[in-house]
Amino acid sequence: MDFYPVAIEKLIEEFAKLPGIGYKTAQRLTIYTLNLPSDEVREFAEALIKARGTIRYCSVCGNFTDSDPCAICSNPNRDKSTICVVEQPKDIMAMEKIREYNGVYHVLHGNISPMAGRGPEDIKLKELIKRMNGDIKEVIVATNPNVEGEATAMYISKILKPLGVKVTRIAHGIPVGGDLEYADEVTLSKALEGRTEL
Amino acid sequence: MDFYPVAIEKLIEEFAKLPGIGYKTAQRLTIYTLNLPSDEVREFAEALIKARGTIRYCSVCGNFTDSDPCAICSNPNRDKSTICVVEQPKDIMAMEKIREYNGVYHVLHGNISPMAGRGPEDIKLKELIKRMNGDIKEVIVATNPNVEGEATAMYISKILKPLGVKVTRIAHGIPVGGDLEYADEVTLSKALEGRTEL
Repeated sequence: MDFYPVAIEKLIEEFAKLPGIGYKTAQRLTIYTLNLPSDEVREFAEALIKARGTIRYCSVCGNFTDSDPCAICSNPNRDKSTICVVEQPKDIMAMEKIREYNGVYHVLHGNISPMAGRGPEDIKLKELIKRMNGDIKEVIVATNPNVEGEATAMYISKILKPLGVKVTRIAHGIPVGGDLEYADEVTLSKALEGRTEL
Repeated sequence: MDFYPVAIEKLIEEFAKLPGIGYKTAQRLTIYTLNLPSDEVREFAEALIKARGTIRYCSVCGNFTDSDPCAICSNPNRDKSTICVVEQPKDIMAMEKIREYNGVYHVLHGNISPMAGRGPEDIKLKELIKRMNGDIKEVIVATNPNVEGEATAMYISKILKPLGVKVTRIAHGIPVGGDLEYADEVTLSKALEGRTEL
């Protein structure tokens, strides 16, 4: 299709490369962009380059950061003896939102999936093991509650327990505000299994 | 929220400014962008600046263009005596896709909406009237089939007819592949009204 000038086609193409954005949406975003003031578009372009250029992974926990170690790892008020293991940096944000966790993190950047051919060596597990220096009291495994996340959690527990570290897993159960009727059997069975005394 | 480094927050904000993109999606797009190769991000940023910088409106028809007059207006093979009037540049693309229309266009950049306080002077109507130089045989009004589009079509017809120009309106009816059962009454009545002999 060459109904649009090259520069427009190119921008539509670039937008369409983003996940979840098809050609029609890319077209809408492009036309919206063309109607923006020039400096707002420049600001957007600069934000792109700056984010990609200045953001690295924290050498301690693997979180996104602009300074190494990251803000969480270098915060003296955080409890360095508790490590919460997550799959992705965005999971850290989800954890931080609850404002209750005061330990540090470790990002695996993936999970173990024998089906997809991803083994323990494909994620940041060696880096996690290296952090077990005797001061670590607890490792909370907060990988996703799906097949891969569970497999990863099992593997981590197997590796770390011999080192004398307490390994825990976040609870499965009915989401708050959820409906028993619509809960799947596995979740419900996990909720029953993990029941607590009132 | 300041869980992310400033540069990431800034990019999330920029993405979230786009229409139809909320904070969660902006976050997803940002993380996707951070994982892209540097030059792909630079290419995206450059496409943004280039599109906004080089694209203007065609001085003849009002379409987006990188050269003035636009590719359609300056094409010697297009029939300059037929003008298709549309609301937005993206409507030109929709028309061009059918590969059957060989006339030229006129973009109103809006429509008449007494409800929203947009009158004839708020759209490119004067520019359309100026194009009525005696060589124009037909003006096809292809504004959207809604209240504002119809009002705009009526107004254009009223203004141009005294100039001796044939003004036509695109047909309303059941969309091809559509279902009679699900057609609204107005569309169905228009379809009946516009019936043709077989």
